Formats: sequence, structure tokens, C-alpha cells
Amino acid sequence: MTYELYYWPEIQGRGEFIRLALEQAGADYVDVARGEGEDLPGLMHFMKDKSVPEPPFAPPYLKAGDLLIGQTANILLFLGGRHGLAPAEEGGRLWTHQLDLTVADFLVEAHDTHHPIGSGLYYEDQKPEAQRRAADFLAHRVPKFLGYFERVLARNPAGTGLLVGKDVTTADLSMFQMIAGLRYAFPKAMARIEPQHPGLVALHDRVAALPRIKAYLASPRRIPFNQDGIFRRYPELDP
Amino acid sequence: MTYELYYWPEIQGRGEFIRLALEQAGADYVDVARGEGEDLPGLMHFMKDKSVPEPPFAPPYLKAGDLLIGQTANILLFLGGRHGLAPAEEGGRLWTHQLDLTVADFLVEAHDTHHPIGSGLYYEDQKPEAQRRAADFLAHRVPKFLGYFERVLARNPAGTGLLVGKDVTTADLSMFQMIAGLRYAFPKAMARIEPQHPGLVALHDRVAALPRIKAYLASPRRIPFNQDGIFRRYPELDP
Repeated sequence: MTYELYYWPEIQGRGEFIRLALEQAGADYVDVARGEGEDLPGLMHFMKDKSVPEPPFAPPYLKAGDLLIGQTANILLFLGGRHGLAPAEEGGRLWTHQLDLTVADFLVEAHDTHHPIGSGLYYEDQKPEAQRRAADFLAHRVPKFLGYFERVLARNPAGTGLLVGKDVTTADLSMFQMIAGLRYAFPKAMARIEPQHPGLVALHDRVAALPRIKAYLASPRRIPFNQDGIFRRYPELDP
Repeated sequence: MTYELYYWPEIQGRGEFIRLALEQAGADYVDVARGEGEDLPGLMHFMKDKSVPEPPFAPPYLKAGDLLIGQTANILLFLGGRHGLAPAEEGGRLWTHQLDLTVADFLVEAHDTHHPIGSGLYYEDQKPEAQRRAADFLAHRVPKFLGYFERVLARNPAGTGLLVGKDVTTADLSMFQMIAGLRYAFPKAMARIEPQHPGLVALHDRVAALPRIKAYLASPRRIPFNQDGIFRRYPELDP
């Protein structure tokens, strides 16, 4: 079966968490709105067409045979179970999902550094608020989240340097993406904060070196970070 | 087995979504930090004690035998499966979870109306920003989210007036709580917006009338809405 991923074609955004899981799974997938068969109407169909009984609120969503699955962490839950990117037993599966959901919370806060007032407004219309929010995010929230995930790494009874058990999970892939994104958006702050979280830095490097992820990152399938995504580099937010 | 719910004792907050599911399930549970056995150290233990191998980032979390489950939607996924508050088959289970996650996104935005800059700051330190964010939330986000869930109701092939299939799910309970919270926080705006979403208003009333939920809402176990929770009534944010 070929999965169909529906996401905006020009950003990493939330879709990137799904792309990383599909790539690490070695799954057969089409990124529907991108490339030769570029299909934005197809992307919009599932949100807009009245014939869709279970419409997603927003991309990304994944078509897997008859299933249409929305919400990033929900898709990861599904793919993790199908492709061994989460433990098979209930406790490990829920724990991995819990970590994916905590990454999702962290991601919203990263987004809101440049859009603290309204996602429908331009950044330029909320710059003073963005500066306050980004300062709070970098001073308090980034250390809190990274400190949390560093503790999770340290306490993993398997002692593998991974977040869950012995094998790579969606949580590891998602944490890689968070760190990569934070480095892009806040290079100065991350240079200060990172050394306090050596386990996460090592995890980032380890995920980047996984053969399938390494090949993906070097391919044109990996969209570069840019100023339309969730992670954006505004120097005034990273003084 | 008696579930142990860990959440702040003086607010509804995110814990309320779990309380509603436990009540509708008729489950045996202890709200650990509340009531006679009030146990805040117990609440903090799982976040702070180094002996906990899978620490939650924040309350609520649920102890279910040997399992310790964090993240509100993850707990609902677990309870939904155990207590028939979600369809048993994979597609329905994922769809219910997708809706719960979309409610969770909506809830963050409701919270951020009074804390758009930093959750560690006082409301009084971010009032001008809160006014801008709340205005955007009420003008754009509330209609968008409610419109979405109204469509989901309308398209439910079972035509039951519920969000998923024929039976009450965690998504219905969570939507009830969202509407109740929005009414508390933004009574004027909701009086304007609600009439456009009659299906959701009917769903709210239907959930409130479920025998177990009705008994719960009338009991001292239901903490009243207050100004420390996620939903807060600041008249200046609902002009």
C-alpha cells in the first residue's frame, strides 16, 4: 500500500514529523501536494468537500487505504504501531505517544513566538508582542522542555541514549526535528542552552546519522527551513 | 482496580476532561490531590522524584495499575478504549482521538487569550496583549473551531447528533466542556456565536443530561469555574 501524505508543499511545518517517520519506516508514500503530481486541490478536497465524512481540521493528514488520519501525533501513533517505531506493548506505546504529544505542545509554543496574537495576522503586525513572547520562550520554556526531555533520556531504563527503550521511536525523530528547528530559528540562544543538554544533542546527531534519515536529509525531499514555516529566523527574536 | 487521577485540586483545567470521562465510564477513581486524602506531595512525586522512569511533563496524569499515563488526550485514548467511550475498531478510535486532539488545540488557544506572552507571568503583566489575542480568538478562531465541529456533527453518517458514530465518546464529553468553558469565559461573545452552531448547543445539553454526568455536575466533585483555571472571565476580554 502506498500512503498518501497531504501537507503544504513549501514548508517543513508539522508535515515534517510525518515525513521523518515515513522515511525512517522505509514506507512507500506520495507527498501529494509536492513534486510532479503537485495536487493542491487534492489537499483541499478533504477539508472542504462536503462528501468527506471525517474531515480533518488542518493538514497534515495521511491516507492509508480506507483510513484518513489527521493530527500529527495521531498519525505518528498510527505509523509507530505499523512500522515498529513504538513499542508494541500498551505501556510503551502510550509513553511514546505521550512524548510525541509533549513535543507537539513545545512546537505550538515555538510557533507562537512569531505569532503570539493571531495566526491569521502577519508577523509584522505583532512584532512587539513577538519579542516579549520569544524572550519568555527562550528564558523559561525552552530550558524547561529540553530539561524535561534530557531527564527522560537519562532515566530510560534501557540506557540507550534514546527516549524510549532500545529502539528508535517517533519520539526520537520528533525530538531531532525540534532541535533542528530551534537551531534554525534561534541560533544564538541554542548555542547558549544546548551545552546543558548533551544527551539531546547526541540524540539529534544520532537520528541525523540513521542511514534512511541521512539519505532523506540530503535529498530534495527535505524542504529547507524557511520563513514560512513554524520555525523562522527573525534576528530580533534571538538577540 | 481504582484509578488514581493526579491533577491540581482547585481548578477544572485539563483534569476536567479526564474527570468527565471517568464519571461517564462509572469508573472507580480517586482524585488524589483533592478531598480528605489531599495529597499534593503525591502529585509532585511523579514529576520531581528521580526514581520515576517515565515522568510526566505536567498534570494531569493517571495511574492505572502499573501504567502511569500523561497528556490529556492520551489519557482519554486509554480510557476510551477501556470503557467503551470510543469505537473499538481502529478507524473510529483514531477518528475520536483526532477530535480530542483538535479540542486540545482549541483549549490551548482559549488559555492563551489571558496568557499570550508567558504562562509564568501574571495576567496583569500581559493585559494589552491579552486584549488583542482575545479579540482575534473570538473573531476568527472560535467561529473556525465551532464551525468545524458543527460540520463533523452534521456529517456523522450515523446522524445521531453525536460527533462519532452512535454512542457517546470522549470527544462529545470534551466538546461539552469546551462549550461550558467558553460560556463561562466569554458570555457575551458566546451569546452572539452560539446560535450559528445549533448542533453543538444541542450536544452540550445532551451531555449535561446524561445521568452520570448530570449527577457529577451537581456534586461537590465538580469544581466551579474560577479565575485560576484555563477558562477565566475577564470582562475586558469579552467586551
